[in-house]
Amino acid sequence: MHNIKAYSAAGATSPLTSTKIARRDPTEHDVEIEILFCGICHSDLHSVRNEWSEFMPTAYPIVPGHEIVGRITKVGSAVKKFKPGDVAAVGCMVDSDGTCPECRAGFEQFCPNMTLTFNSPDKHLGGVTYGGYSESIVVDQRFVLRVPSNLNLAGAAPLLCAGITTYSPMRRWKVGKGKKVGVVGLGGLGHMGVKFAHALGAHVVVFTTSPNKKEAAHRLGADEVVVSRDAGEMQKHAESFDFILDAVSAEHDINAYISLLRRDGNLTIVGAPPKPLPVAALGLIMRNRSFSGSMIGGIPETQEMLDFCGKHNITADVEVIPIQKVNEAYERLLKSDVKYRFSIDMASLKSE
Amino acid sequence: MHNIKAYSAAGATSPLTSTKIARRDPTEHDVEIEILFCGICHSDLHSVRNEWSEFMPTAYPIVPGHEIVGRITKVGSAVKKFKPGDVAAVGCMVDSDGTCPECRAGFEQFCPNMTLTFNSPDKHLGGVTYGGYSESIVVDQRFVLRVPSNLNLAGAAPLLCAGITTYSPMRRWKVGKGKKVGVVGLGGLGHMGVKFAHALGAHVVVFTTSPNKKEAAHRLGADEVVVSRDAGEMQKHAESFDFILDAVSAEHDINAYISLLRRDGNLTIVGAPPKPLPVAALGLIMRNRSFSGSMIGGIPETQEMLDFCGKHNITADVEVIPIQKVNEAYERLLKSDVKYRFSIDMASLKSE
Repeated sequence: MHNIKAYSAAGATSPLTSTKIARRDPTEHDVEIEILFCGICHSDLHSVRNEWSEFMPTAYPIVPGHEIVGRITKVGSAVKKFKPGDVAAVGCMVDSDGTCPECRAGFEQFCPNMTLTFNSPDKHLGGVTYGGYSESIVVDQRFVLRVPSNLNLAGAAPLLCAGITTYSPMRRWKVGKGKKVGVVGLGGLGHMGVKFAHALGAHVVVFTTSPNKKEAAHRLGADEVVVSRDAGEMQKHAESFDFILDAVSAEHDINAYISLLRRDGNLTIVGAPPKPLPVAALGLIMRNRSFSGSMIGGIPETQEMLDFCGKHNITADVEVIPIQKVNEAYERLLKSDVKYRFSIDMASLKSE
Repeated sequence: MHNIKAYSAAGATSPLTSTKIARRDPTEHDVEIEILFCGICHSDLHSVRNEWSEFMPTAYPIVPGHEIVGRITKVGSAVKKFKPGDVAAVGCMVDSDGTCPECRAGFEQFCPNMTLTFNSPDKHLGGVTYGGYSESIVVDQRFVLRVPSNLNLAGAAPLLCAGITTYSPMRRWKVGKGKKVGVVGLGGLGHMGVKFAHALGAHVVVFTTSPNKKEAAHRLGADEVVVSRDAGEMQKHAESFDFILDAVSAEHDINAYISLLRRDGNLTIVGAPPKPLPVAALGLIMRNRSFSGSMIGGIPETQEMLDFCGKHNITADVEVIPIQKVNEAYERLLKSDVKYRFSIDMASLKSE
């Protein structure tokens, strides 16, 4: 066991401040990673402020961060896939039982014994797991991912959550050439959705409430941009979409988007609005439509996504900040004042 | 053009009474069918009482009925697939443009120019189409279906709507051997769902509010029956279903059923509750679940369903009534006082 620097919050109303935390020494199956960049995900903020207390209460102190890229510094004796010096990544999970049907099917995110990267019981050290707002992390090799060498590392970090969360449902619902795909909400998740849908060869339509986002949407890969408050513009796209990715976590009228789906079309929501969404059954019935949810992705698909990003040179658009600006970044995140994801340059932690 | 006997309603609060209506003489592509049985569907009642006025206002007089089986009496010169004497069926549709992408894909129910069996503009005679509560019907051969010779005709009639409505989503969502399938609501639709899921080889669980329906559910093919008001019983089935057919058109808590789906599981609703259903996004997200609607089925799939019924000797459980009891049957339908579908013996119309 050894102590390292990290940023943690002591309570739901406390800011994140510099601290020290313990990491285990790598076991034979472990990989130790020096963290270079860590993305800021909205769920970091939810957890820090205990906003998900109902189903996932926060244990304090909390060290958030599950969009981690870094360089491997040590590997255990049984680790063959990785070696010191490799660029590697860790996402939302650091462990699972490996034996249940979900794990065997490559859906570790649904394993009943899955360990989240932060705020999950830590079976090695006791207490809870600590995430990526820290100098280094020690992770079982099964949960370590390879990062293609051509990717910008600051921009690659958000792929581990925002990336896989949007990539997975697009693959499941067969987004590709000849398909018309909508993306609702142009934030951290939505902007990745646009990039993936475009790279997969689909015709991409971005829905936005503000006409001044049009140019940015086109730059990300949108073929069309629809101002969702304009009923006439919406109507022009009625019954035409194969797939819509809904990345809005605020309350919104989902039926307006469901009615834009063609026969057999699917709308997948990846943000979780706080209240149940009223869904008109008839809107689903009239064209055999479906409304789904999707939660990150398993390890095999996360690696597939990273490889896809390497091939298409896709990373998130990030604003790189030092760790000292993390509290300010949280406030800006609440106002959607970032294009489109914050990525913490963890070198800044060394000066603490 | 020739006049025939029928039962029609003159207004939203009028009973159905004996009348005469005009049918066209068969054109070269038409088939004339003497109607032997016509099922009573809840949408007959909705239309007669103009309860769907918002999206499908009723034109009076209305002759309902879209679960039609009978014997062919005449065929047009271009009709090769059918001949007088054949047993045939007609469902919810009698025409479509035949050229749009939906028609070409065999999804005539979504053709923008589809003609419903009743209460749709009649392009031959003007006015609106008249349904199966009548002596005979003249239909384009493309919308005439073959009825396997082993099927009881009174019980076969409801296959044309209740049957295809439940069969289609089960095929789409791959119900079969090794799958666990739930059916919510044991009425006209639900009881067909149980029969199909059982015949397709699935493990079938029926959800009911009343414990006294258990025996009947088992007789229809259920392997298990769960009393949905018993939270403990429901909890035992958490995260275990591949597919759930929801045939309840009253308001109900759909999230309780969504939470019973396993990863990638689907719940399809075929009844349309009057108000939007509150859906918890997190329930869909947590296991990549989906919530769908489904509307009857296209002509190719309806024929496939009838052939499947022939092979497995499946018909609806019906209470056969004379047409003179149709108003009484509507009142009983509102109280779910029928096991499980009324089928009108149209020979009774001859005495009018």
